[in-house]
Amino acid sequence: MKTILKNATLLPEHGFAGRPVQVVIENKRIAAITESPLDETGADVVDCGGNLLIPAFYNAHCHAAMTLFRGYGEDLPLHRWLNEKIFPAEELLTRKSVYVATKWAIAEMLRRGIASFSDMYMFEDAVADAVLETGIKANLARSLVSFDPTVDPKTDSRLAEAIALAKEYHMAADGALKIDFSLHAEYTNLPHYCAYVGRYAKEHGLLMQLHLSETEEEHEACIKRHGKTPSAFFADLGVFDAPTSAAHCVWLSEEDIAILAEKGVTAVHNPVSNLKLGSGVMQLRKLLDAGVNVALGTDGVASNNRLDVLREMQTAAILHKGISRDPACLVASELLPLATENGARAQGREDCGRLAIGARADLTLIDRHSIHNLPTYDDHAMLAYSAESADVRMTMVDGRILYRNGEYTSIDEERLRRESQEVFAHYFE
Amino acid sequence: MKTILKNATLLPEHGFAGRPVQVVIENKRIAAITESPLDETGADVVDCGGNLLIPAFYNAHCHAAMTLFRGYGEDLPLHRWLNEKIFPAEELLTRKSVYVATKWAIAEMLRRGIASFSDMYMFEDAVADAVLETGIKANLARSLVSFDPTVDPKTDSRLAEAIALAKEYHMAADGALKIDFSLHAEYTNLPHYCAYVGRYAKEHGLLMQLHLSETEEEHEACIKRHGKTPSAFFADLGVFDAPTSAAHCVWLSEEDIAILAEKGVTAVHNPVSNLKLGSGVMQLRKLLDAGVNVALGTDGVASNNRLDVLREMQTAAILHKGISRDPACLVASELLPLATENGARAQGREDCGRLAIGARADLTLIDRHSIHNLPTYDDHAMLAYSAESADVRMTMVDGRILYRNGEYTSIDEERLRRESQEVFAHYFE
Repeated sequence: MKTILKNATLLPEHGFAGRPVQVVIENKRIAAITESPLDETGADVVDCGGNLLIPAFYNAHCHAAMTLFRGYGEDLPLHRWLNEKIFPAEELLTRKSVYVATKWAIAEMLRRGIASFSDMYMFEDAVADAVLETGIKANLARSLVSFDPTVDPKTDSRLAEAIALAKEYHMAADGALKIDFSLHAEYTNLPHYCAYVGRYAKEHGLLMQLHLSETEEEHEACIKRHGKTPSAFFADLGVFDAPTSAAHCVWLSEEDIAILAEKGVTAVHNPVSNLKLGSGVMQLRKLLDAGVNVALGTDGVASNNRLDVLREMQTAAILHKGISRDPACLVASELLPLATENGARAQGREDCGRLAIGARADLTLIDRHSIHNLPTYDDHAMLAYSAESADVRMTMVDGRILYRNGEYTSIDEERLRRESQEVFAHYFE
Repeated sequence: MKTILKNATLLPEHGFAGRPVQVVIENKRIAAITESPLDETGADVVDCGGNLLIPAFYNAHCHAAMTLFRGYGEDLPLHRWLNEKIFPAEELLTRKSVYVATKWAIAEMLRRGIASFSDMYMFEDAVADAVLETGIKANLARSLVSFDPTVDPKTDSRLAEAIALAKEYHMAADGALKIDFSLHAEYTNLPHYCAYVGRYAKEHGLLMQLHLSETEEEHEACIKRHGKTPSAFFADLGVFDAPTSAAHCVWLSEEDIAILAEKGVTAVHNPVSNLKLGSGVMQLRKLLDAGVNVALGTDGVASNNRLDVLREMQTAAILHKGISRDPACLVASELLPLATENGARAQGREDCGRLAIGARADLTLIDRHSIHNLPTYDDHAMLAYSAESADVRMTMVDGRILYRNGEYTSIDEERLRRESQEVFAHYFE
């Protein structure tokens, strides 16, 4: 199947100096970008209306099914929020509720121009079903914890579940669906278990997702417990020898940043969740300067309350200027890679996240004609400061249009609304 | 004329426990709120579809015509941005360009549920024309500066312009348009001039708008220059004896906060602009605890880049939790008054900004059925964390619907687009 996206405007780094182009997609990939007239015979032709075609967004850290808890138990101190609200609510999760809530989350992400997400949660087989049905991409990981020093990882039921998940789903849908491993965090795991899981992931070519130094408390407690930071803890156990995405990274030391750079660990920045939960502010500039691959994530909806990578990018843009008191500390054009190709790299998708010939066609179309986007002197500034995800006119994943002008192609929205309302309405009964 | 907004959901503090109500508007004011069936004869009936009807937003500080400079000269240090970009760009302003850019700004604000704005700029007569044509409310102020110690305020042309503006436009359109006075800031004014203007404003019953302690540099320079903070400077000169809105208030001391509380000065919080320009973070919790009236503003688009009060409210919500590292430091329901009635109070509009019988009907309808707003356990959490201004379905100002479902009633959007594009395209020629 051939798709031609015609009359698209590209960012400066994609060439053509703002002149309208045609982007040809064949076999899931960008086959050509040209200003010349094309033979449209047999092609699916979409007129982009002069709007801005960019690489689609990658949500490099989330817990999609937590969409169930949007706005539930707000404005509490962190430990009360977790212990009185979130953990009891999660006890009620079922395969069905995770499936429906994940599909609802995917519907939100597709509207917002997101082509892929990394997920760390429970009932990931249900998440996998939602991913395969909707056509979005994802790296899914069953979150692993270990509190019992006598546990043998070889006989641990959660790890067995993660391994079974990988066997069943890894690289499904021509690689659109990948299964990662996930050690939830240092403070929820024991060293021998981490070492085993890290080695297993490395040997089987699976990626690792984990939470790292999200709060000062957990960071300091690890130093007290193990005499080293969480970054050093995981590095020393060999966990970072599997390609790793570390969410949050708020409380890293200089040495920790060096470890991440050396080990090629992706630091996933979740600015909205880190602010809302009172966790603090990642040192983004330092991580970038150290050469760390930084991607963006939304975290779960319960601490956000949206799945909006563009908003994360825009929050990062102003937050780090404000905190550093240096409006020049980040440049608009530096930000988009965090939301796109760095996320793809975090997911081990080197052929994704870019608008280039040969790359998988994960593309998002942004309305340049919205009142709040005009005048436009600089499309990067538009993306970093004025555009909003309601400006997304189309989301394409692996060459397939999954969302366009308010309509889904792979989701029956009315049916999903009925199913979701049923689950939402009775969840806490 | 009578308008009935039927099938509306209200916030908990407005009563009716989430049951659908009908809100009756007559003579610009809310005449009744009822669950009972009504005689709809002769009324303009609008079905709210169960969506959330709230007081409309008030933008308590902006420079609307700076919409011309959206995305122009981004990511520069503050002094280079001002001296190399903004000041030279402002030299090119004309009455026509201010008029068109303001109308464009008003179109953006109406889409975003904003019923009124406070403006401080040049060519305010052109701004007044745009306000009167579109039906939005505004408090407009010609920005005053004084650098020459020999200047006699009585013969100052800028002040004469401000006085003439007040004579021509103050309380026009049944009070929808008000003229305020504005001393731009301490660092752009001399004491004798401030004292004169403050006294004039007080004697003529006009409000005062000014910038206060936006940057650390200006705050410290004032202490060096006058041996006191900007707040003490204005208070001692009697400026705060006229009801005053002070924008930014980032660098206030404890004593400054006490002065604002005692003098009834509104502190206008502009979190996005303060972050983007690297100015710092206002101590919101301290100001609220001291009993200061805190409203929200967008500042000009050049440092934002949107005119979106809901976004300011949401940025404030997460920012102060993050900076204080206390997720309980602000509660969702505390935030809406900053965006609504506190702004109305700042504008001297005590009968506005509330959803109550007898109040002027400035109302905004928020879509509760957007995918990103469901599930909803708490409408205040929805407003504070998940809703976005693209969810605004209707904006009513003084009982008149000015925006509904993408359409304006007082703005010819196509014509405005043509006029604006003409101005934008040739502005820097």
